[in-house]
Formats: sequence, structure tokens, C-alpha cells
Amino acid sequence: MSLAAMQVSVSRNEDAVAAVVDILSSKFGDRCSTSGAVRQQHGHTTTWLPNQAPDAVVFAESTEEAAEVVRLCHEYGVPVIPFGTGSSLEGHVNAPGGGISLDLSRMNQILEVHAEDLDCRVQAGVTRKQLNAFLRDTGLFFPIDPGADASLGGMAATRASGTNAVRYGTMKDVVLGLTVITARGEIIKTGGRAKKSSAGYDLTRLFVGSEGTLGVITELTLRLFGQPEAISGGVCPFPDIESACNAVIMTIQCGLPVARIELLDELQVKACNAYSKLSLEETPTLFLEFHGTEAGVKEQAELFEAIAQDCGGGTFQWTAQAEERTQLWTARHDAYWSSFVLRPGAKGVSTDTCVPISRLAECVMETKQDLLDNNLLGTIVGHVGDGNFHVLVLVDENNPDEIAATEAFVERLNWRAIDMGGTCTGEHGVGQGKMKYLKREHGPALDTMRAIKAALDPKNIMNPGKVLPPA
Amino acid sequence: MSLAAMQVSVSRNEDAVAAVVDILSSKFGDRCSTSGAVRQQHGHTTTWLPNQAPDAVVFAESTEEAAEVVRLCHEYGVPVIPFGTGSSLEGHVNAPGGGISLDLSRMNQILEVHAEDLDCRVQAGVTRKQLNAFLRDTGLFFPIDPGADASLGGMAATRASGTNAVRYGTMKDVVLGLTVITARGEIIKTGGRAKKSSAGYDLTRLFVGSEGTLGVITELTLRLFGQPEAISGGVCPFPDIESACNAVIMTIQCGLPVARIELLDELQVKACNAYSKLSLEETPTLFLEFHGTEAGVKEQAELFEAIAQDCGGGTFQWTAQAEERTQLWTARHDAYWSSFVLRPGAKGVSTDTCVPISRLAECVMETKQDLLDNNLLGTIVGHVGDGNFHVLVLVDENNPDEIAATEAFVERLNWRAIDMGGTCTGEHGVGQGKMKYLKREHGPALDTMRAIKAALDPKNIMNPGKVLPPA
Repeated sequence: MSLAAMQVSVSRNEDAVAAVVDILSSKFGDRCSTSGAVRQQHGHTTTWLPNQAPDAVVFAESTEEAAEVVRLCHEYGVPVIPFGTGSSLEGHVNAPGGGISLDLSRMNQILEVHAEDLDCRVQAGVTRKQLNAFLRDTGLFFPIDPGADASLGGMAATRASGTNAVRYGTMKDVVLGLTVITARGEIIKTGGRAKKSSAGYDLTRLFVGSEGTLGVITELTLRLFGQPEAISGGVCPFPDIESACNAVIMTIQCGLPVARIELLDELQVKACNAYSKLSLEETPTLFLEFHGTEAGVKEQAELFEAIAQDCGGGTFQWTAQAEERTQLWTARHDAYWSSFVLRPGAKGVSTDTCVPISRLAECVMETKQDLLDNNLLGTIVGHVGDGNFHVLVLVDENNPDEIAATEAFVERLNWRAIDMGGTCTGEHGVGQGKMKYLKREHGPALDTMRAIKAALDPKNIMNPGKVLPPA
Repeated sequence: MSLAAMQVSVSRNEDAVAAVVDILSSKFGDRCSTSGAVRQQHGHTTTWLPNQAPDAVVFAESTEEAAEVVRLCHEYGVPVIPFGTGSSLEGHVNAPGGGISLDLSRMNQILEVHAEDLDCRVQAGVTRKQLNAFLRDTGLFFPIDPGADASLGGMAATRASGTNAVRYGTMKDVVLGLTVITARGEIIKTGGRAKKSSAGYDLTRLFVGSEGTLGVITELTLRLFGQPEAISGGVCPFPDIESACNAVIMTIQCGLPVARIELLDELQVKACNAYSKLSLEETPTLFLEFHGTEAGVKEQAELFEAIAQDCGGGTFQWTAQAEERTQLWTARHDAYWSSFVLRPGAKGVSTDTCVPISRLAECVMETKQDLLDNNLLGTIVGHVGDGNFHVLVLVDENNPDEIAATEAFVERLNWRAIDMGGTCTGEHGVGQGKMKYLKREHGPALDTMRAIKAALDPKNIMNPGKVLPPA
């Protein structure tokens, strides 16, 4: 699939790269790899963008080691690309100008858990599932759940979220503080453990979502939440997208504190039925989950039921049984993979638009029509409580016309969302793939972002060729 | 009261100032004032810091007009100090190098309310009470409530919060987007109306809390919330600070979604009794409020009651009656003013530390002992669900020893909070008064803040002499 136009070239000094790789090899031994397979794997992501491998991969085991790598790269003007689990979707870990992939996956220690304060401190390579497994017996949990079992550093870097965001927020809301290596290789700490602060510029939220272009996140202080006393969940079919979206709007507007409210279109339901052995009606469907007390989740489910009826929905089937809920949500989390049963062997291209929820039905319906008009096959799942939805277009990689049609479809979808007051990316980040949309989305504010990048990374070594399109 | 050491001098070019004032006078007519009273009033705040008046005050009526003022000041290198209602506490609107106070109070239009999306767009001069009065019939409300009826632009600039923050967050959580005038006088828009986005650097949260030192906020897109179906509230006495704090920790930890949980120490309760004609037991007391459904708020109140009992609290008296609640919360909001009944004629010096809640009891108790040891009179109120509390020290302005003792006390309190992993300011901001604490609180991260300031405001015209201490 050729998408070269999205990949900005980054200038490259061969001598400097060779010198840095030499020094790192002697310093890190076999924790500095130049093998083709390792390099390819570190350029690889779940992306549709062509692989651009780094020159070497260093597996750091401490903040100090990572800082040493950055200091060296800064001295020689060589790119540094932070790497967590490689599950990003927009070419975030590609190395368009080569350089050093700084792999933090071995920095996977959970350093502190403060149950009384509902917070913890972890190294950047800890994954969300690892953290939740560790927390299981504490009565606490960490709610942010992108599809992949991503590293928490990577999730902060891309401002990730997922199905729980409607209640618990995104990474911007749950990161209290960070340890960051600046482009010069200095170690700074941002934020702190107080639940709020007005003490100076919010560097924490500047680094959250900066995708490694301003510094390397090596540690995070994260908010935790008490495991709810009771959880209930269920599914509710709707005759069409519009009535499902109306139910979402009413649910949010009346302040029902849903923990999850997810839309699957009829095609996605069909795929989930096939892949996860369900027997849901193949129609637009909302998956819901409620967290609270026993009485509270019952009350929430009943309120939602009334709303769904008002909006023309079918029977809301809900359960407080853990096994049934788990089966449903496993199916929801497997939605990405299930889609491929609709077209085995296809390549998946995932979009990530987010719009004000008043425009959601319109945006989803226009998008479905656009797929139809262009003979494209795509499933839709959405974190609709936030107005965020993904189309997974299933593309034949060997069909240039289909690739071109997909690219044009994705472009139209992104412009559509931006023109509705929304964004081209709700949670995946910009990477290489979304750069071209930022001018229209941010206008002159892009120059302010460029000024910050130039001030904090004057040599442009931090994940160059990402986020900010050339001026 | 002499606190000159906290006020950093800002260099001043008399000719440039005179030229700018001339041009603004001819452009804005009587909306550009150089009268002594108006200038003094615009340096004045509810602060204990000496007044430093600007050279002129311009009353802007549009973003374009405000941008014109900034462009002119940028050209001549003259300071611009944004002004909302002047209710900030740390000398934020002082003009240590003179310059132009840019008064936005006439920019008080509510531009859009999107009930379906739970958001609105307002000009920066709209106050929080004005917005809520406007929203009254929509079923929506805006939750952030600092004591003063501040402007929303000013609240964003200082990252304000208040009693509802434990449930609804602070200004960083409710600002979706901003219109900002950069130091060069360009108008940019940050964020948008989507509930979440991963599209580039989070400029919104960089400007929130930047206290006018990076740009001027002229419009805000804000999240709104549905008015709760039911509200209940009440008061619960405790034998001591520690047991009250323990009840707070348990309440937060078990995920009870309190809307407000406020601590008043025995002295503050005494002041409230006298000022607001209450008859509360004069002992450490928690004020609580619950938002939810009828059944939900009843359940929350009962759960809290059980927690309070476990922690040794007295009878939790709660009510769903609006009048009784209003009387209580009016008393709470009048706490600042009520304190002066304990020492009529005194000057109030308010602190604003915030610590992890596990350290709250320790921090409050050490602080009370410190007051005692130094013969100082101070009341304590706290947004304790967030670990944030204020001491209002009542000082005789004509007693130099007492002033010195107060300054030393405030310093010790701020170091104490920082050393406990907290912050010197939870919601008031840095202004002039807190600059000297930032080095210890942020360490080398302060240099990253300075780099951002230098990049976005290279001529140092935006509210100079605030937030960042000299390197």
C-alpha cells in the first residue's frame, strides 16, 4: 500500500548515526541490536503505513540509561524514537530518518501503589493489563483500555482512551505526573501526587499526547479508581443508527453515569456473532456497562431501558452476571479482529474521528453512505458517549483502485468530522498518518505548536517527522 | 505589609509606554483610562501584596480589539496584563513594570449553548454566576465555584476550582477549547467541541493555568453538566481533625461520588456560627453534598453516615430540603468573610496548599500546631476530597513582628506541603506570591517552563514578573 505522501522525509547524517550506533553497542552490548528483524519489528506497528526501520534498537532498563541514549543522540543530532509495545496505529514508531529506537519495554516495574491516595507510580513499559493484574487484590483498578495491551508510557504519549473514557476520562485525565527525558537528555519531573495544582504551566498535559516529539516519558504517576461494588451490563438493539445515537445523547444529557456505551453497526454485530459465537440481532446495537452500588446499577439499567424505549430501541437485555458480561465485552474488545471474518486476508485501515455527539448520527450515517457509494466494506464501532467512532475498512492490498478509494474515503471522513467541530483523531494520535489534517483542524494554532517543538527540541531529534506537518 | 522580595522588578521603557498609551487613548477614547483610581483598582486584588498599578486600562469589547492592544504592546515592548474581575489572590493583576491592563469584563456575552452536547461558548468576561443564571432554565449548570464570582477567563487562567472539584474537576477538566491572543497579537483557537482529541499538543491545557503569561484568553468553550435530579447535603461533627480526614479518605477510596466534601476546623465553625447565625457544635466538621437520583443521594448519605460512624464522627445531619442546604452552603461560601468576626479589622492572608489525602491529617495538624506555636490566629477550610486546604491567617497589619511571623508560617506551610508530595497552590495560582516556591516544587522542570515562555513570548510582554521566578 503506497502512502508515501504522508511520510515526511527527515534529513540524515550517516557518519553521526554510525558513531552513535558504535558507542551504544559498546555501552549496551547485546541490549543494542542492529539485527534486521529487530529493527523491522520496531518500525512495525498495527499501521497501514510502510515500515521505516531505525538503525538500531536500544533496550533501556532505567531512566538514567534512557537519558544517556538521548544525551548521546542529542550530541550527534541523531533521531530518538521511543518504543513501548508497538501497538500504535499511525506510524508513530517509524524511523523516517533512521536513528535509535529507544525500547522501554523492559522498564516494566510497578514502583509504588498508594491505596489511600488512589494513585500509583509505574515505569513506562508497564502495560495496562499488567497493572490491573497487579492491582487485582487491592480493590483498585486502572480504567483506560485501548484495544491493545499497550504500555502506559505509549498510552500517555498518544493520549489514549477506550471504552471506559465516557466515565473515567482519557490519559490526559488520569496522569498526575511524569518523569520525562528532555531532548537534551535532562531528567525532569512534571506534576505531582496532589490531586490538583495551579503551580505553573501544565507540562504533564503538554507531554501527554506529544507522541515522543518533545521528550521521552519514562515513569508515570497515575490515578486509580476503586473497583465498583457492582457492575451490570447489557446490549440493546436499535432499528437504525439515528435512534441508537439519540439514546446515547439522552443518556449523557440526563447525567446517567454510564461506565461504557458503545455502538456497533449491523455489520460489526454480524462479525462479532461469527467470531465470538454470539447470536445478537444484526442491527445497530449499543453495548452498555454500569458501575456503582447494587441498587445504583439496577437503577441505571432501568433508566437506560426507559430511554431506549423512548428512542425506539428493542429490548434491553442486561445482566449483573460476571460471565455473561465478560463474554459480551470480550466480543466488543475483539471487534477489530472479528471484522476480518467478513473478508479474510484483507488489510484493515482504522479511522478515529470524534465529533460533538449532537452531530454523531449525521456523521456516522453520511460515512456509511460514503462506504456504500464507493463499494467499500467497513465495520463501525464507536465510543459513542464521547462522539468517537472507528471505521475499519477492509481493503484488498493488491487492488490499487480500492486502495485509492479507501484513501479518498478516509480523507473525506476526516474533513467531515473536522467540519462538524470535531477532530481527525479522538484517541489514536497523529503519528505520520494524520499530519495532513492538522492544518484544517488547528489553523494558526499549529504555529504555536511548532514554536513549542522548536523550543524544546531545537535539533529536531525527538521522533522527527511526526505530529507537526512541515510549515 | 512589606513583601517586596516576592515582587520581581520588570524593566520599563518610559518612551514606549507613553507612545502606546497615546495611541490607545486616541483609538479607544474613554475606554482607555489613565485615571489614578481606575489604575489603582486594576492593580488591586484580594491580595496581601502591595499594589502596582498599570499605566493605563483598556476596556476591550471584542477579541479583535484585544488583539489590537496586544499587537501594539508587542510592537513597542510594553507589558499587557489581562484583567477579569480582579478577584485573584496572589498579585496576578499587578503591573510591576507598568504597561496596559487589558480589562475584558465588558466581553460578557454568552455566545452559544449546545444543550445536546453539554457545552457552551462564552466570552472571557462572563462570570460563573452570570453563566449559571443564564443556564437556570436549561437543566444544565456549570460546576466550578471558586469563592469569588470570578470571570471564566480569569478562572481558566488560574486553573481555578472550588468545592465541587472533587466530583466535577477543575478548570483544566471543563475547558474544551479557547480563543487566545498570542504575544504577537495573533488570534488562535485551541481544542474544539469534541469531547476528546489526540490531535497534537494540548495547547488548551497549556494556556489554562498560565495566568496570562503566554497569551490572553478571550473566549472559552466549556463543558456543562445536567442539573442533578436530586441533591442532599449535611454536616457531620468529628472529635478531631484526624478522624474527619480518615472519614474523607474512606469516602473517596470507596468511590462514593460526593459532589462536595469540605472540612471546617473548630475555629472556622465558630466564625460561621457567629457570622451566619448557625448553631453548629464547635468542633472539626465536614460539610457534604450529594448529587444524583432521589434513591442515589439517599444511598450516598447513608453510606457516608456509616463511614462517619466508623471514624468516630458524631451524628450526620442531612437534608434534601433546598432551603436548609442553601443556608449551610452559603455559610460555607461566606467562610472567608466570616473569619473576620474573630478579629475585626485584621488583614486576611490565605494559603492554598494541596497534598495527597493520605498526608492531609498530618499536614493540617502540623499546621495548626505551627499557628499555636507562633501565636497566630488562623481558620482552616478545606476542599478535603482533593487534599486542598486554606488557612486564613488574621493579621494585624500594623504589627511588624506579626507580619514577619505570618510570612515565616506561610513559608513553612508551603515547604511542608511540597515535601509531602503536594503543591504550594491547589487552585489560587502562582502570581507574584508563590513564585519563590516553584524551584523546590518543580526542580529542573522549571527550565522547560522557561523555554516555553521564551518561545511564546520572546519580548516578555505577557503579564511579566509572574509565575516563573528569575533563573
